[in-house]
Amino acid sequence: MTGSSPPLHFIRLQDLTDRQIEDILDLSERMKRGASRAELATHTIGLLFFRGSLRTRTSLVAAVHHLGGHTVNLTAASDFWELEAQDGTIMDGAAPEHIRDAAAVMSKYVSALAIRPKQAGQSWTMDRKDMNIQAWAAHSQVPVINMESCLWHPLQALADLLTLRESLGNLGGNKLAIVWTRSPQPSSPSVVHSILHGALRSGMNVSIAHPPGYELDESVLDAAQTSAAERGVELETGLSMEDAAEGAHVVYARSWHSLETYGNPTLAASQLARAGTWTIDEAVMARGEQAGLMHPMPVRRNLEVTDEVLDGPRSLILAQAENRLHTQKGLLSLLLRP
Amino acid sequence: MTGSSPPLHFIRLQDLTDRQIEDILDLSERMKRGASRAELATHTIGLLFFRGSLRTRTSLVAAVHHLGGHTVNLTAASDFWELEAQDGTIMDGAAPEHIRDAAAVMSKYVSALAIRPKQAGQSWTMDRKDMNIQAWAAHSQVPVINMESCLWHPLQALADLLTLRESLGNLGGNKLAIVWTRSPQPSSPSVVHSILHGALRSGMNVSIAHPPGYELDESVLDAAQTSAAERGVELETGLSMEDAAEGAHVVYARSWHSLETYGNPTLAASQLARAGTWTIDEAVMARGEQAGLMHPMPVRRNLEVTDEVLDGPRSLILAQAENRLHTQKGLLSLLLRP
Amino acid sequence: MTGSSPPLHFIRLQDLTDRQIEDILDLSERMKRGASRAELATHTIGLLFFRGSLRTRTSLVAAVHHLGGHTVNLTAASDFWELEAQDGTIMDGAAPEHIRDAAAVMSKYVSALAIRPKQAGQSWTMDRKDMNIQAWAAHSQVPVINMESCLWHPLQALADLLTLRESLGNLGGNKLAIVWTRSPQPSSPSVVHSILHGALRSGMNVSIAHPPGYELDESVLDAAQTSAAERGVELETGLSMEDAAEGAHVVYARSWHSLETYGNPTLAASQLARAGTWTIDEAVMARGEQAGLMHPMPVRRNLEVTDEVLDGPRSLILAQAENRLHTQKGLLSLLLRP
Repeated sequence: MTGSSPPLHFIRLQDLTDRQIEDILDLSERMKRGASRAELATHTIGLLFFRGSLRTRTSLVAAVHHLGGHTVNLTAASDFWELEAQDGTIMDGAAPEHIRDAAAVMSKYVSALAIRPKQAGQSWTMDRKDMNIQAWAAHSQVPVINMESCLWHPLQALADLLTLRESLGNLGGNKLAIVWTRSPQPSSPSVVHSILHGALRSGMNVSIAHPPGYELDESVLDAAQTSAAERGVELETGLSMEDAAEGAHVVYARSWHSLETYGNPTLAASQLARAGTWTIDEAVMARGEQAGLMHPMPVRRNLEVTDEVLDGPRSLILAQAENRLHTQKGLLSLLLRP
Repeated sequence: MTGSSPPLHFIRLQDLTDRQIEDILDLSERMKRGASRAELATHTIGLLFFRGSLRTRTSLVAAVHHLGGHTVNLTAASDFWELEAQDGTIMDGAAPEHIRDAAAVMSKYVSALAIRPKQAGQSWTMDRKDMNIQAWAAHSQVPVINMESCLWHPLQALADLLTLRESLGNLGGNKLAIVWTRSPQPSSPSVVHSILHGALRSGMNVSIAHPPGYELDESVLDAAQTSAAERGVELETGLSMEDAAEGAHVVYARSWHSLETYGNPTLAASQLARAGTWTIDEAVMARGEQAGLMHPMPVRRNLEVTDEVLDGPRSLILAQAENRLHTQKGLLSLLLRP
Repeated sequence: MTGSSPPLHFIRLQDLTDRQIEDILDLSERMKRGASRAELATHTIGLLFFRGSLRTRTSLVAAVHHLGGHTVNLTAASDFWELEAQDGTIMDGAAPEHIRDAAAVMSKYVSALAIRPKQAGQSWTMDRKDMNIQAWAAHSQVPVINMESCLWHPLQALADLLTLRESLGNLGGNKLAIVWTRSPQPSSPSVVHSILHGALRSGMNVSIAHPPGYELDESVLDAAQTSAAERGVELETGLSMEDAAEGAHVVYARSWHSLETYGNPTLAASQLARAGTWTIDEAVMARGEQAGLMHPMPVRRNLEVTDEVLDGPRSLILAQAENRLHTQKGLLSLLLRP
């Protein structure tokens, strides 16, 4: 299963060229219309979950099956044990095995490794390094696929780009409004980081709304500003919900936690209380240009977005979810092409 | 994966016509004798477990494999999260996702959804509504298969009907004795509800034995009385073990909890203590007409039924278990026929 | 799925003849070079885990897939319930099901059952009987495969024998040094019991190093002495690390717990403290004849073996791990040959 050249990993959208992304989206569309390829026959893809998953797990497993392959699904804690990520240490602690060994060994059994790492949740400076998935990629001899790390969720971004393309045609010049929403259990900003990057690369103008203190990761934002400047598109941040949605062609809703109070639940709770209500309803949507509503799910109904909007004619959430399946088939075809 | 007409769900035996049940049993018998059909090739069936399962899980997975398909198995708690079942609520509690969204999304990835819901265990009035699986059925665009809800276990009933047919030939006019047995962890009456309904529909006379306070669900029993009257067969309830077994052709053993003390462990324990010993032994079996012994398992040996009976020549328990595999293949063929 | 003759189980290496082991290793080598056989098409193999597993689970699942078959993976606790192993008991305790019933039922659904039993950890006299896996074998109508019991790990031994053969050619007359290593969570001696037995049967001389009190199981050691005498090879035990490695062609590292203090964590901890440092480094390896380093993993780096040795040119650990896949394909082909 080991090739002579290093495997192509998919940790960030940036790991693919514009051309590769186009190829994947084209192939995904053909597969969505029924084109089938049994190119994974006798292949096994390993899925390792260090956190829960419903959509990602099911859509990736189904994608592999549609291509004729099998999966092996491993859930940390119930199925196996803690792994050491630091190199050179004397391993006399809780972890009986090093990621470098687990990755090298798993590479011998499977054709690709999809990983959903845990976030330690103590320090953003630490977590933003995505050390665990980087260690898997460094030591795996087969492609490593990121099923959402602290910093990125590139599988969601591929599905989102296909959904945007289906909804808008050519993305260039259209406006995407990314709007923070309220949740008692906010997510990592990974989804927003990835779609922000993907939208700018596709030539979209982007506006971002969030309460004070909910800025995205500074380095990601710097890179986004650079990308926007290179492509001559606009990127505005820190707006109100209404201002961001103004003239938008798509409103992308997502809750994420504050990186200011990361790792401090008490401060995070009081900051969330101060943020007030952020629920996307028809009034917000009416600011856009017949704007579609996107959300990666799970979505807290009537807290993040109203039932009326979620179940209305402009909702794209089910198309996004369905496109997870098709774009993952496209991606697997590219990564595992013989 | 979505059709134009609503999908055929299998929540209760009543969801199928007499003709459909006959077709499934006929097909199951042919498959048991070796007829094979690869009609599920490239199909994935989703199995969601909100409670543990050994027989149902393994037999359903094997049935799908025999038909050429794949499964994805999801265990709540270890694999994913709590789901909201109430419509219109503001979702600011523990559940980050609504069943309506989970069901709609999963429908995009799989060809059928098999669900084993949890029972809340607080109130029978509430639990008997089977709200969770009904919500899955309402929002899924693919067939939903009940892997045992509070009220019904139709997969077990299909296997039981095939076992009865193999043992007795034509079921009409034969007598089935359903006998309550003692267990420190009684089950839901779901299995008994389903086989009671199935036996009456097949023209069997049915007698039911249980201690005072262990009556079956009132509405299920009313419907059973109506069904018996329509078919001109006898239904007797509340008998002693010996009276129920008198002249029976099959004795069906099963422990179930009292619906009177449901949700109150203290009262339930003292009621169970008053119930005394209910163990099926050779003396009970001798009341029947060379009666076979059925039990859906898991069975507590020498507490519910003696080793002598379970391992004796009239025991049908392994045939029942094996027929889970064959009847599920028949059912899947019917539900997923192109 | 039931045959007329009893199924061939694989609980210990001793369950196979020398000729069968040769056949498996030959077939494994051909499969490693790419020979493929779809002999498990439509077959399902059941994997039951009562303890965690990464390598064994993934390599066995992948082996089944490569042969065209499917698996169903069951994890105790999250997926199902406690099983009773004692015969004749009145089952009014925690376990709702007897292994004899679970094994008989599972036999109806799958073509083989692979089991990783739990060790109770109270008494070696009790645990060394391997009662659980023996009960599965006694009541299963399909082959039972041991995925590591208290006493044996024959799947690891098959992979180890192939690795030794690849490294040394004919094993006869070569010397294997088995060296105890230090770990805060020692393993069962199962791996060492199995490779000790396999190496002697292959005509290797074996030396064993360990601190006082870490002797292997007495009956296993007696049988090993008999085996050595029959084949005219040498077996030395209780050596220092350096003496065992002297002139060895392969050093096999593994931590195992003391059977003297088994079931008594306090005594076990002070015994482990007295054992001192046992870390295999280049100085130990230099005692051998360009000796290879083997370890079944998981390995605690720089505590059991130094990074330098593990990542050096004489390390065979990844070959061992990869050979798990190939030898399991060979074994499944033998066990399930029509």
